[in-house]
Amino acid sequence: MTKKCIGVDIGGTTVKMGLFEIDGTLLRKWEIPTRKEEDGLHILPDVAASIRQVLAEEKIELIDVAGAGMGLPGPVLPDGYVERCVNLGWKNLNPQRKLSDLLEGLPVRTGNDANVAALGEMWQGGGKGYKDIVMVTLGTGVGGGVVIDEKIVTGRHGLAGEIGHIRIREKETEFCNCKGRGCLEQVASATGIAREAKRVLAAGDEPSAMRRFGDKITAKNVLDCAKEGDAMALEVMETVAYYLGWGLSIIAMTIDPEVFVIGGGVSNAGSFLTDMIEKYYEEFTPLSEHTAGITVATLGNDAGIYGAARMILE
Amino acid sequence: MTKKCIGVDIGGTTVKMGLFEIDGTLLRKWEIPTRKEEDGLHILPDVAASIRQVLAEEKIELIDVAGAGMGLPGPVLPDGYVERCVNLGWKNLNPQRKLSDLLEGLPVRTGNDANVAALGEMWQGGGKGYKDIVMVTLGTGVGGGVVIDEKIVTGRHGLAGEIGHIRIREKETEFCNCKGRGCLEQVASATGIAREAKRVLAAGDEPSAMRRFGDKITAKNVLDCAKEGDAMALEVMETVAYYLGWGLSIIAMTIDPEVFVIGGGVSNAGSFLTDMIEKYYEEFTPLSEHTAGITVATLGNDAGIYGAARMILE
Repeated sequence: MTKKCIGVDIGGTTVKMGLFEIDGTLLRKWEIPTRKEEDGLHILPDVAASIRQVLAEEKIELIDVAGAGMGLPGPVLPDGYVERCVNLGWKNLNPQRKLSDLLEGLPVRTGNDANVAALGEMWQGGGKGYKDIVMVTLGTGVGGGVVIDEKIVTGRHGLAGEIGHIRIREKETEFCNCKGRGCLEQVASATGIAREAKRVLAAGDEPSAMRRFGDKITAKNVLDCAKEGDAMALEVMETVAYYLGWGLSIIAMTIDPEVFVIGGGVSNAGSFLTDMIEKYYEEFTPLSEHTAGITVATLGNDAGIYGAARMILE
Repeated sequence: MTKKCIGVDIGGTTVKMGLFEIDGTLLRKWEIPTRKEEDGLHILPDVAASIRQVLAEEKIELIDVAGAGMGLPGPVLPDGYVERCVNLGWKNLNPQRKLSDLLEGLPVRTGNDANVAALGEMWQGGGKGYKDIVMVTLGTGVGGGVVIDEKIVTGRHGLAGEIGHIRIREKETEFCNCKGRGCLEQVASATGIAREAKRVLAAGDEPSAMRRFGDKITAKNVLDCAKEGDAMALEVMETVAYYLGWGLSIIAMTIDPEVFVIGGGVSNAGSFLTDMIEKYYEEFTPLSEHTAGITVATLGNDAGIYGAARMILE
């Protein structure tokens, strides 16, 4: 029997898990609730029990599993140590050692969820076939992950891939969650796009298809209106694409990946979005005709379990 | 006898070379002119002959040399291939294979000179003791090098570390050599600092110690005046430090190195400069109290031979 590997993606509400062949074939995926009570004390025992149960059902022995990878919603130090994970209630814990102990010494690796998702997209998603990718996830916030030579770049303080918090908009007046001003997240997340639309709508009184959504307008509404040719919605998306293209150009001049993979809900806009980003990205990378391309993620919410499982194969 | 290694730093005017112990001790350094005639045909044979001569004088056999590393003034692809090296007259050449052939199959590695200098500073310079560093060289232009886990990040198109060409100044009106506008090089290189001073002097008529230098003003003049408290010179350096601090903050949020090493002639200003940069850098990295520090390079023009020799030990 060839070895299997397991990917665990621990989120604030559910823990997603996947059982994989080491060639990347997903054999089975399942999820359990994340029990955050008592400082998240039950999470890892729950995960271990669930893995044992599924392996028993699949008639796979622990010895036939190469290991388990785990993505967490917070910063993870290079040795797997977690100082604080607000979303799970954890403090000063080495979850990879603990899960390993609960599974008879099974090799366990841990990473930040956004970084892990980037590795998943490199393995079996939008970045398949590449070794150096930067993933940018445009969701409620903006997350990121940097993979060089098929390995996650964690950074010495666990901050690598915090692309949502690169300062890019000099004249921003509101504060970001990180206490900075002008973060990429403030303009390019789903929240940021909706906010930008409200700003543009409030600044003038021209007619716009966006007006019918009022204060409840979402990034999807803005993108739909832009695709239909609404001038104000297009203006909003040009602003978003300008800052994204600029941010990616800076990353390209720093680490020069093979490809940028855009994920998250906003990336459902597909080439409509990536074409706009690419226009500015190319304008801001005149140094060479050969730079990283821009593509979209394909694994959706499964990127985390794929990447977690892939960590074991490093 | 312990193995030796050789570092070769090929510049447009001279080739600097160093013979090292593998622990980083520099045994001897020397240089020869760079003969660029006939498309740089003689450069590598000259280097090989010079290495043979020095080894003979030192009574060291080629077999006792672990290898030679080579830094080049232009982009180098991951396999050592050089499409074009304007400064040396080379086109479509694999100089590392050629030098290896000229030295009886000696292992040879090649890298871009700015990247190689970064590796040198990591090994025996301002970044000694660290594994992840980003070097920023403030000279006539702005060069850069990224080292992660003790290895140079070359990038898939040879563009990694082109920190001088990250776009940072949105309102810049003049063009950079790369055809971009607003590159870090345009404001933070020695040339850029002098240009900024001329702009500020021309924009007003307040008295300034900088005025005595007229159009011949250099970055060193600006820094000297700033250190003496001249208000206009301080204004210029605040602008320079603002864009440098901003640029470093973006790099920190992308790859999160342990330390930034500032080199080049401008870095002779020492902590006067790094303190100013750090002020803005910290303002723009509010996400964490733990981020990379900023220090100055210590190897000067020798960084290239150190880094080239270190490449062999990867």
